[in-house]
Amino acid sequence: MRLSKYFLPVLKETPAEAQIASHRLMLRAGMIKQASAGIYSWLPLGFKVLRKLENIVHEEQVRAGHIPMLMPTLQSADLWRESGRYDAYGPEMLRIRDRQDRDMLYGPTNEELITDIFRSHVGSYRDLPLTLYHIQWKFRDEIRPRFGVMRGREFFMKDGYNFDLTKEDALHAYNRHLVSYLRTYERMGLQAIPMRADSGPIGGDDTHEFLVLAETGESEVFYDSEITDLKFGDREIDYADKAQCQAVLEEFTSRYARTDETHDAAIFNQIPEERRRVARGIEVGQIFYFGTKYSDPMGATVQGPDGKPVAVHMGSHGIGVSRLVGAIIEASHDDKGIIWPEGVTPFHAGIVNLKQGDGEADAACEKLYSALKAKGLDPLYDDRDERAGGKFATMDLIGLPWRITVGPRGLKNGVVELTSRRTGESEEMAPEAAVEKIAEIYAPHRGEAGTVEPMADRSFHTWM
Amino acid sequence: MRLSKYFLPVLKETPAEAQIASHRLMLRAGMIKQASAGIYSWLPLGFKVLRKLENIVHEEQVRAGHIPMLMPTLQSADLWRESGRYDAYGPEMLRIRDRQDRDMLYGPTNEELITDIFRSHVGSYRDLPLTLYHIQWKFRDEIRPRFGVMRGREFFMKDGYNFDLTKEDALHAYNRHLVSYLRTYERMGLQAIPMRADSGPIGGDDTHEFLVLAETGESEVFYDSEITDLKFGDREIDYADKAQCQAVLEEFTSRYARTDETHDAAIFNQIPEERRRVARGIEVGQIFYFGTKYSDPMGATVQGPDGKPVAVHMGSHGIGVSRLVGAIIEASHDDKGIIWPEGVTPFHAGIVNLKQGDGEADAACEKLYSALKAKGLDPLYDDRDERAGGKFATMDLIGLPWRITVGPRGLKNGVVELTSRRTGESEEMAPEAAVEKIAEIYAPHRGEAGTVEPMADRSFHTWM
Repeated sequence: MRLSKYFLPVLKETPAEAQIASHRLMLRAGMIKQASAGIYSWLPLGFKVLRKLENIVHEEQVRAGHIPMLMPTLQSADLWRESGRYDAYGPEMLRIRDRQDRDMLYGPTNEELITDIFRSHVGSYRDLPLTLYHIQWKFRDEIRPRFGVMRGREFFMKDGYNFDLTKEDALHAYNRHLVSYLRTYERMGLQAIPMRADSGPIGGDDTHEFLVLAETGESEVFYDSEITDLKFGDREIDYADKAQCQAVLEEFTSRYARTDETHDAAIFNQIPEERRRVARGIEVGQIFYFGTKYSDPMGATVQGPDGKPVAVHMGSHGIGVSRLVGAIIEASHDDKGIIWPEGVTPFHAGIVNLKQGDGEADAACEKLYSALKAKGLDPLYDDRDERAGGKFATMDLIGLPWRITVGPRGLKNGVVELTSRRTGESEEMAPEAAVEKIAEIYAPHRGEAGTVEPMADRSFHTWM
Repeated sequence: MRLSKYFLPVLKETPAEAQIASHRLMLRAGMIKQASAGIYSWLPLGFKVLRKLENIVHEEQVRAGHIPMLMPTLQSADLWRESGRYDAYGPEMLRIRDRQDRDMLYGPTNEELITDIFRSHVGSYRDLPLTLYHIQWKFRDEIRPRFGVMRGREFFMKDGYNFDLTKEDALHAYNRHLVSYLRTYERMGLQAIPMRADSGPIGGDDTHEFLVLAETGESEVFYDSEITDLKFGDREIDYADKAQCQAVLEEFTSRYARTDETHDAAIFNQIPEERRRVARGIEVGQIFYFGTKYSDPMGATVQGPDGKPVAVHMGSHGIGVSRLVGAIIEASHDDKGIIWPEGVTPFHAGIVNLKQGDGEADAACEKLYSALKAKGLDPLYDDRDERAGGKFATMDLIGLPWRITVGPRGLKNGVVELTSRRTGESEEMAPEAAVEKIAEIYAPHRGEAGTVEPMADRSFHTWM
């Protein structure tokens, strides 16, 4: 993309209403614009990141054997009356009356709707196990929306639902979700720690929240420092293998890690003092096992092996996709702006032309731009007639991990400058070498056609 | 995908409430389930097609130089009061009051919101031309929703907005949209004819609707039969070239083609009688030029070359993405079920195992399945223990364009059977030859990394 043809309305001023870094930086970098309280338009740069996160979530869910579908945003109140949650949910549920005076609502979550689909179409234990999910806009009428997309009212969420014959199978589904979430967050450049949590309005006995450590987190968290050494990494996992998934659960949840809701000082104090950590965390996902809480009242049964009806064991599992954009920025920024992890960056590299209009500099930039695109990379070329300082500031603000600087002086020596946004370190090299190096850096993120490859990166594909 | 692991709830009975083929077939093929009146859940097969259409629309918009972003579903009433449409819109607008008693609405379209974004961020004619678009769920509270996704209440639409300094530039944007829409529909296997139409609540002087001819269409259409011979095909187009785009507009709109709203019998009757056609059509898109209708009242101006403020010339341009799923089926089905065009089929080919459990047949199917996946193709393998007749009926119903039938008898001779869903013709060949042939058929639909290639097909990619 050429910046002169793009829509990237960066702001010079820091917006007064933004209290935390991610909100400030998303506004300043032209990623979002508030449409009304707690509701945002995703400007092109923000939408690109949001879409990348969505694709990573899809890929990891499909890899785990879960099936994508899509439920609508508006739901009928009737189903919620069946489960008993219509009255229980409180004022955060946005209630709507249509022109025929029917009670509707903007879905904050989808347990009822998916259970209705299940009971309408599935009749036998032979059709289990089954996990369906979707990624859809939700609404929660927060009394005090704030922190930008971190606590908005209209938000984009992945929610998945497992249907199993037994508790044991349902706990395997729980474990599959835990594993797939660990992979998902790591691909986004995040460390998200599963912590024993409280189930809230979803209900259920078993639940873990995934928290990203950040000073601006809404939850106080208590954990054993050993947990931050754990990495899922690129190990192979067979999602059908119960023991393998259970082992991952145990590895990642056996050390103490709890939010303030479930914190137990007596247990915490048994950890050696030098490993005890108290910090703040941002919740970016949660998994639940809740048994027959919805299948019982809603009659979601299957015929068991003995011919008798069995209420299915369920769980639900969410990832806050729009909120993750903010969480990644909270975890990765500095005074100058955002620092995108390679897996989610909106563009792979920026090209800064120090002397727009200079024949040689322009030609070198065009050549770099084409060479990067020929490698399947997605560069952003700042081809505006602006001062170098302004161009650098924009690139630093929007946070592309790599910048190539092209100027007449370097070109005389046959070199351009390759700069890491994270370290600030620069290296001079031939333009071809810079292209090769960037291609190498992104190689682990390249998706392979027709397969679910680790770290597939949709930006190598066609439309963005 | 193995059918035994998928969620494909096909119905044996024809649902009584469905009056038209696409609605019937989408329900029977397990593509959708009604959630409430005019609101549907997209089951896995339906979601896959919807997502493919979305991706084609994105690719063609980006190719035309238009920039993707995303506006929210809920909007504040205030902006609509500015344009005067809040009161004018009528009961099809779903009006909502939030917990703070603010007037909101579920966006039926986005002229106001995009104009607000524009006026907040764009100040100079140097930033023009600019075309922004998004693909988002919309709501229109139809008094009598029917025909499934063809006339639903919650629907998925692409809407794009151009901002230009002059009427001439805006008409070029109009032409770009016309060209990109022709390409879009052709990639979906549809012929959609641009017809002079009425502007309705969007307003404006110039507008064309795109109509797909189908008996179940809601509009009566009148056209010169020569128009159905026109194909955009794979010609090259430079979207920046005004003359080229204008020539396409003239080619595709110079013959008579109008809906009943704008039909003029006197002109129609001047066409030679044998070329006069009266038929029915399904509206799948519309483009508008409306000048300063929104920029004037909302103060969307830029500083012109002479330093004086100029109200921008605008247009808006929509494609009904969810409705297209129905339109494609209306245009392409038979008594047995859907017949997907290759560009949008949810799976590239079906594999039918005639004797599940037979060692040789199972092994041959597994090998075919892997070989197709290795080519980047996305097969659906019916590995259920069912009668051949039932498997054929399911494949015919869900409409995959190609089916490979594998049975012990054929395998003895080293062959499988490749059947075209469209023609019903079968051919025996070695399994390897069947794989090669299918790969060849889909080659024009294959997307190339990092480029916006014609006919790129997302299903070659990773997550679905």
